[in-house]
Formats: sequence, structure tokens, C-alpha cells
Amino acid sequence: MAEGQDRATDHADVEAANARFYQAFETADLDAMRELWLDDAEALCVHPGALPVRGTGPIYRSWALIMANTAYIQFILTDVEVSVLDDVASVTCTENVLTGDDRSGPEVFGGGKAVATNVFVRTALGWRLWIHHASPVLSAADHDDT
Amino acid sequence: MAEGQDRATDHADVEAANARFYQAFETADLDAMRELWLDDAEALCVHPGALPVRGTGPIYRSWALIMANTAYIQFILTDVEVSVLDDVASVTCTENVLTGDDRSGPEVFGGGKAVATNVFVRTALGWRLWIHHASPVLSAADHDDT
Repeated sequence: MAEGQDRATDHADVEAANARFYQAFETADLDAMRELWLDDAEALCVHPGALPVRGTGPIYRSWALIMANTAYIQFILTDVEVSVLDDVASVTCTENVLTGDDRSGPEVFGGGKAVATNVFVRTALGWRLWIHHASPVLSAADHDDT
Repeated sequence: MAEGQDRATDHADVEAANARFYQAFETADLDAMRELWLDDAEALCVHPGALPVRGTGPIYRSWALIMANTAYIQFILTDVEVSVLDDVASVTCTENVLTGDDRSGPEVFGGGKAVATNVFVRTALGWRLWIHHASPVLSAADHDDT
């Protein structure tokens, strides 16, 4: 396979893994969420507005808690940008969040918009999530214009 | 050199690059800041509460603007965690921010605390910043306990 095709395949695979991450959250599928993460003490998860959670055990527990406290959530992803650097890939996207109630978990907040950086690592089992960092968008200012 | 020593050197080098990043911001040294970044259209910078800035050109301009609008800033980094995965390394840290005035740039916000994920890539010239994602800490809740 030509290098260009390899790269296109990598991009598609990473974007699919990123989509599975949000689908796991939307369907509150903790097993699917667990399967996506790299099993690593140095895996990192920053929920919007929160301090970091480190290591797969604490990360799974944080998702279990968030899923248990989220009645309904739907993500509409915009500005999805995939960047592959050998065996590491990053996805940046804007998470436009729709929820069914007001008492949602820490992944949701006023405004309904977050920016996420998701860093995946290539493994024998496919791309696995190493870092998820989501942050609230506090203003409409778009720094792309600066 | 033994593998353990290599790893220790990598950790130290990455932590030093991370320290240079904050020093460049504190001293408003745009040249030092520019030198730290990977020259890449897919480099990514998320300032706290803001939408992503992509590519070295827009990223430099965002820093120029922030530095021009920051009279005084000092970072006290806590919980610095370095993770090296071959030629990519991540640093997570809590940025405890001290500023001299109230009308500071977008890297500063109410509360004075942010969480940053900084992802570095190994190059012939040393570790270069590929991703900087900083997010405001909106509550004192520490998800490490969940």
C-alpha cells in the first residue's frame, strides 16, 4: 500500500476511534469506553473545568460516575481535525453538547460547548486513547482570527 | 547508556522544555516561545476558555497578543507529571497563576488556576511543543478521588 493510502487509512481509523469515544459516552456504554483507553498508569483525562484524572482505574471510575449522573447526552462534533505523527495521533474537535436535563455530570456545563484534544496511541489492538482533555469554551471569541 | 538512564534523561529534558515554555511566557520572550514550538500546520494551542488555534503562524500571533496584553504573570506549577512514549511526551501540570493586574490576557481568568496538557515531540533540535491545551479549573472538586 502506498504511503499516501497508509496515511489516509490512519486518519480514518483515528477519526473512527474518536467517534466511538463519543458514542460510548452517549450510550453510557462503560465497557466500550474502557476498551478505548490505553491501559496505562499515565493515561490522562481532564473533564471540563476539573483537575486531571490519571491512570486507567481512576479514569474508568470517573466515567462510571459521569454516566450514572447523565440522563441524556448527545454530541455534535464540529471542526474535527486529525493529526497523525507516526504511532501517535491527535484529534481536536469542538463538542456541541445537548442534554436532557439540568443536573448533568461534570462533562457538561453552561453554554454547552467544549473543546477537546484526544490523543491516541497505535497498539496491536488498534488506536487507544492516551489523553482526553476537554475544556469549556467560555466566550465566543475565536482565536483563529488573531 | 542503559535504557533506564535514557528514560530518566528524556523525562528531565521534557520537564526542562516545559519549564522553558512557562519561562518564555513569564518573560514575554516571543522568540523563545517561537523556538519551543514544532513548526507545523497541525500544531495546536488551546488557551483557557477559548477555541483552538491551529498552525504555528496563528499560534505565534496569539502569543504575541497575549504577551502584549499581560503586564505581569508568574506561574507556580504543581502536580507536574511527565510521560514519555518513544518520540512523543506529555506533561500535565496545574498552573497556579499570579498576575499584576485585572485586565490580563486570555491565558488568565478568575480563580487563577488552570490545568495544562503539553505534548512534546522529539526532533533533531530537541523536544518541541506540538500541543498546548490549558483549561480553567472551575471548581475545587478533585476527580482523583472518584
